[in-house]
Amino acid sequence: MTRVLFQGHWDRKGIDYLRDNLDPSLQLFTEEDGVDDCEVLISGRPDEALLRRVSSIKVLVIPWAGLPEATGDLLKKFPAIHVHNIHHNATSASEMAIALMMAAARLLIPADRSLRNNDWSWRYNQDRAVLIDGSRVLILGYGHVGSRVGAVCRAMGAKITGIQRKPSEPVSEDGVSLFAADMLHELLEKTDILIVALPLTPCTKGIIGDRELDLLHDRSIVVNVGRAHLIDEESLYHHLRNNLIGAAGIDVWYEYPSGKETVSDTPPSSCPFGTLDNIVMSPHMGGAFNHEELERQRMIHLAEFLNLYAAGEPVPNRIDLKQGY
Amino acid sequence: MTRVLFQGHWDRKGIDYLRDNLDPSLQLFTEEDGVDDCEVLISGRPDEALLRRVSSIKVLVIPWAGLPEATGDLLKKFPAIHVHNIHHNATSASEMAIALMMAAARLLIPADRSLRNNDWSWRYNQDRAVLIDGSRVLILGYGHVGSRVGAVCRAMGAKITGIQRKPSEPVSEDGVSLFAADMLHELLEKTDILIVALPLTPCTKGIIGDRELDLLHDRSIVVNVGRAHLIDEESLYHHLRNNLIGAAGIDVWYEYPSGKETVSDTPPSSCPFGTLDNIVMSPHMGGAFNHEELERQRMIHLAEFLNLYAAGEPVPNRIDLKQGY
Repeated sequence: MTRVLFQGHWDRKGIDYLRDNLDPSLQLFTEEDGVDDCEVLISGRPDEALLRRVSSIKVLVIPWAGLPEATGDLLKKFPAIHVHNIHHNATSASEMAIALMMAAARLLIPADRSLRNNDWSWRYNQDRAVLIDGSRVLILGYGHVGSRVGAVCRAMGAKITGIQRKPSEPVSEDGVSLFAADMLHELLEKTDILIVALPLTPCTKGIIGDRELDLLHDRSIVVNVGRAHLIDEESLYHHLRNNLIGAAGIDVWYEYPSGKETVSDTPPSSCPFGTLDNIVMSPHMGGAFNHEELERQRMIHLAEFLNLYAAGEPVPNRIDLKQGY
Repeated sequence: MTRVLFQGHWDRKGIDYLRDNLDPSLQLFTEEDGVDDCEVLISGRPDEALLRRVSSIKVLVIPWAGLPEATGDLLKKFPAIHVHNIHHNATSASEMAIALMMAAARLLIPADRSLRNNDWSWRYNQDRAVLIDGSRVLILGYGHVGSRVGAVCRAMGAKITGIQRKPSEPVSEDGVSLFAADMLHELLEKTDILIVALPLTPCTKGIIGDRELDLLHDRSIVVNVGRAHLIDEESLYHHLRNNLIGAAGIDVWYEYPSGKETVSDTPPSSCPFGTLDNIVMSPHMGGAFNHEELERQRMIHLAEFLNLYAAGEPVPNRIDLKQGY
C-alpha cells in the first residue's frame, strides 16, 4: 500500500470523489485521520516539522499551479523530495485568455458601456479593432495554458509562435514555432498579439517592460493571465495611456484585497488603469470559473496523478526548485 | 470582353484595387464612366429602369451579405438574372460572435465595471460562469459565419451541432452534426450555447421566441450576430431578466439610429437591456471591424467572384429569391 496524506481544508465531497477514483493500492488520509506517515504528501504549504519527522515522504504534490515562495525555499532543504504541480485549471485560464483577447480586439468594454447609454458611436469608430485571422500571436509561456490558447488562435487563422524553457534550438510542433526566451526581443518585433502565460519566478519578473513594449506596434494587443509582475506596472500603463500599444486584457493585478473586508475597496494598481478605454480588466477570474466544477477538476487531476504514481509510471509537472517552476 | 458595371459610391482606392486584380477579359466600369451596357452588375439596390433598359445583364452581385427587401422584390420581376452575394465580412462576424460568447461566458462586462471601481466581488461570484470546453454548441445558420464559429468552439473542446437549410437528412461534416430546421426544438433541449447566425427572411423572423428560449436551461448562453428580429425582443428580455437563460451576447438590435444626428441618442430596444448584468451589448460591430481593411476584403472577394465568372467556372453564393437568401 502507498500512503497518501492530503493536508489542508478541503471540501468533504471533493475528498470523497478523490478517494472513489483512486487505485486500490493507494490509501488516502486527511489531517483528521491523525496520520502523518506517508509516501506522497499533497500540500501547498507543508510544515517543516512534518517534513523532518516523516522521512518516508518521496513526493510533494502542490494541488494547484505554481510554487509558493516559502514552499520553494523550504523544499530546497529536502532535495530528495520531488515537488509537483497539477494544472486542473489550465482549461479555464486558457479560455479566460481568449475572452480577454477577443474583448480587447473588438472594443467590447467601451462599446457596451456606450450602447447602454444609447450611444452607438463605437460602431463608427472601429479603426483600432483587430482581426485574429492573419495575426501573429506570440505566446510567452507555451505550457498547459499557452498551448491551449495557441490552438484556439490557430483555429481563427492566426500564426502562432511560442516561447518555452525547453527548446535550446527552435522547433516546430503542430505548426507552432517554439523558441527559447533569448529570442524574445526578435519575436516581439513581429508580434500583433502577445499572450503572457508564464509563472512568476525571479527570472520572469518584469520580463515585459518598457523596452519590450516598445518593440510592439501601436495596434498590438497584450493579454496577461500569468501573474501581474511579469509585466512592469508603469510601463504597461504608460504604453496603453499613450496608445503606444493598441489594447490589453489583464486578469492578474499588482494589488489584491487583503481580506473579506477590503474586497469592495482595493485598487488593483497604483496606476489609474480604470480610466482607460483600451483595457479589459478582470479581477483574477482565470483559474476559478465555478467553485464546484473547479474542485471536481482538481480531484480528477489529483486522481490521475496518484494513479500514475501507483502504477509506477512517470508523473507529470515536476517543479525545478532552482528555476521556481 | 465581359463588361462589369459597379454601381454606388465606392472608395476610389478600392475600385483601383479591384481593377488591378481582375482577369484581363473583364472590363470594369463605374457610374462615372456613363456606361450601362453590361453583363455583370454590382449593386445592392439596382434601379428598375436600368434593369429594363439593359437586357444584357445576366448576373447581379450584391457587394455584401444579405438581400435588401426592395431588391428581392424587384429582382423577382427579372427571373433570368441570377442574384449573388459576397461574404467578405464573414471572418469578422464570426470573430465577433466568439468575442460576445466569451465575454458572456466569463462575465467580463460586470466584472470589468466593478474592478474599475476597486470592487473585486465578481471574483467570488463566478458560479454562473461557463466553460466552453465540454459545452454543447448549437449553431443556428451553419453558413459562412456559423461554420467559422463552430471551428473555433471545437478547438476549445465543445461539441458542435449545426442547423442549415441544405440537409434533408442529418449529415456529419468535419465532426459537426448538421440538421434541418425542423429539428430545432429537439436540439435546443440539449444546448448549452446557442449561436444565431441566420439571415432574416419571412421564414426566420422570430424563429427564437418564448417557446424556444424555454427549452434552454438557466445557464445557457445565447449569441446573436444575425439580425435582431430573429429573436423575439420581449422574450429575450424576459428570459435574461428572470435568469431563465444564463447570459446573452447581442450585436444586432431592434432599433437603429436613423442618421448621424441620432447616433448618440437611440435606444437599441424598447426593453431596458442596458440595466442587465447578464448581457454583452455591442452596437452592430460584427461586420465592419476596420473600414479600410473591410473595403480591401470586399474587393478581394469581388475579384475572386468576377475572375471565376470570366473563367466560366461556377460562381458562389447564389440567392434563392423565394427563400430570401
